[in-house]
Amino acid sequence: MKEFSIIDNYFKKRSYQRKDVLIGIGDDCAVSSVAAGQQLAVTTDTLVKGVHFPEDAAAQAIAHKAVAVNLSDLAAMGAEPAWINLSLSVPEVDENWLDAFSQGMRELCEYYSVQLIGGDTVQGPLSVTITAMGFIPENQALTRSGAKPGDLLYVTGTLGDAALGLDVALNRAEVPYQHRDYLTNRLHFPTPRVLAGTTLRRIATACIDISDGTLAELGHLLRMSQCGALLHVEKLPLSPAMMESTTPEKALDYALAGGDDYELLFCVPEELKGTLDRALLHSNVPITCIGQMTGQAQKLEMQLNKQPFQYERKGFEHFSG
Amino acid sequence: MKEFSIIDNYFKKRSYQRKDVLIGIGDDCAVSSVAAGQQLAVTTDTLVKGVHFPEDAAAQAIAHKAVAVNLSDLAAMGAEPAWINLSLSVPEVDENWLDAFSQGMRELCEYYSVQLIGGDTVQGPLSVTITAMGFIPENQALTRSGAKPGDLLYVTGTLGDAALGLDVALNRAEVPYQHRDYLTNRLHFPTPRVLAGTTLRRIATACIDISDGTLAELGHLLRMSQCGALLHVEKLPLSPAMMESTTPEKALDYALAGGDDYELLFCVPEELKGTLDRALLHSNVPITCIGQMTGQAQKLEMQLNKQPFQYERKGFEHFSG
Repeated sequence: MKEFSIIDNYFKKRSYQRKDVLIGIGDDCAVSSVAAGQQLAVTTDTLVKGVHFPEDAAAQAIAHKAVAVNLSDLAAMGAEPAWINLSLSVPEVDENWLDAFSQGMRELCEYYSVQLIGGDTVQGPLSVTITAMGFIPENQALTRSGAKPGDLLYVTGTLGDAALGLDVALNRAEVPYQHRDYLTNRLHFPTPRVLAGTTLRRIATACIDISDGTLAELGHLLRMSQCGALLHVEKLPLSPAMMESTTPEKALDYALAGGDDYELLFCVPEELKGTLDRALLHSNVPITCIGQMTGQAQKLEMQLNKQPFQYERKGFEHFSG
Repeated sequence: MKEFSIIDNYFKKRSYQRKDVLIGIGDDCAVSSVAAGQQLAVTTDTLVKGVHFPEDAAAQAIAHKAVAVNLSDLAAMGAEPAWINLSLSVPEVDENWLDAFSQGMRELCEYYSVQLIGGDTVQGPLSVTITAMGFIPENQALTRSGAKPGDLLYVTGTLGDAALGLDVALNRAEVPYQHRDYLTNRLHFPTPRVLAGTTLRRIATACIDISDGTLAELGHLLRMSQCGALLHVEKLPLSPAMMESTTPEKALDYALAGGDDYELLFCVPEELKGTLDRALLHSNVPITCIGQMTGQAQKLEMQLNKQPFQYERKGFEHFSG
């Protein structure tokens, strides 16, 4: 496989161009400039066929998801996305597939003004590794460790849709016809909360993106912030598609333990509640307060309509089983 | 596989620490600062088992090579290495293997003051993707496109050793016993020419690292710089191990077409020859002038002792066949 021609033919000419990139694809390295006062956020995520996306996933969907999950990590840090690097392992040179894949990347990159600045292609089992880089004004990074007792706990969007979408895609769940596309699109084409992430700078005390399920990510927040939390499970935001497709109990299960939603889970001091509402008005991202941080380190208390709520994870299967 | 614990157990605690890294492994992104006046160089390389390293390669050697080939790209750009991100795909969690792998990474990172700032581990066929980042003072990047007719053509170190080392490792070549280790080490533990790369800033007009063989890389330089070159093949630097292990004809073949040397190939204006010699005195890197750039775009002329030299590539096999 001629690595050079693949990168050149399918990616270089389609790359969105940014002014801060001085040298893009085609030299030993990319070279770009970071504006004064900005810090650099860097993240890497790898998606493997059969583990992170199904065997028959469309090339465009794989590309979208590979970029989106990385932009989601940047968003969770409050970073504005700028550049990505791609390492693509493919079993063979399939022109149609590469065409669709590069198209999927291009669309998301263009939407978020992100430039592909380099990469490597190798022959091997299908997998996609992306390193995404973005900017954060000095000392404004949203970490997982800044939450304080009393902070309100929020999520963006709705929860559990992608996990239900997975069950739909694998024929493990039947849902009303009109909701199928919405749910499977939530799985295959996640929306990174980029604008919400940058808006939350100087408002949120802690933030994390929900890739492995709400409870798992909340667990990370509690551990890193050495806080506890009281979670009102009846407040978990559910989509109309979710509510019309399954039982309330099962919907809660998806919302608490289902993965791949890529919504943001974040904490805001009570006194900044008004600031938060006003700031997010412009970004058109719905948010829901689902609880409050407490002082008991790593203790999670759950209530359903003010009654204690015991939850046993039903054991969601990802592709990896 | 619990990604979190692998990164935490094997990589985080062993990571070399830099002052410009504000947030390392363990949050959604790493966050670091780029000093004023510095540009960022970024490169990604993936090594796949059976393609870029043999099936039975030691974990420490794989780690060394994965880091080294990326630092070599930074060196070729004149960048000072700073941070790397790792994506590691392993078929299973083998503690001894992970231990040796992280040890191999740590050693090279420590030597070059590079911090591992993040990564992702997935279950799959063994492969290693590293994204390396480094600094270049504004407008001092060494590209492939700046060579001018008349520039002298240089290489660092000796050529062909890694390719002969590969033949030794695969039992395709017999060499004197005392040279085996040197040659296979040149294959498995390449030395990135980091100090030479930064020293060449403002001296070299163009630079590239030799990963795919001298002729192939020279071809890239000629194409990108729209120059030609006259190459004196008798000047190609050969190691004593090479000269004592094979015929002169075969040695030339290794030096011209063998891959994986990771030496630098670069161009310097004649009037900076003295500056070059003085600058590299301190870095202890041997360099050899092997030819000169000409004005005929992409035309490569080769001479052996001032006579025209016709070369037919003998067809080196990499692991990929």
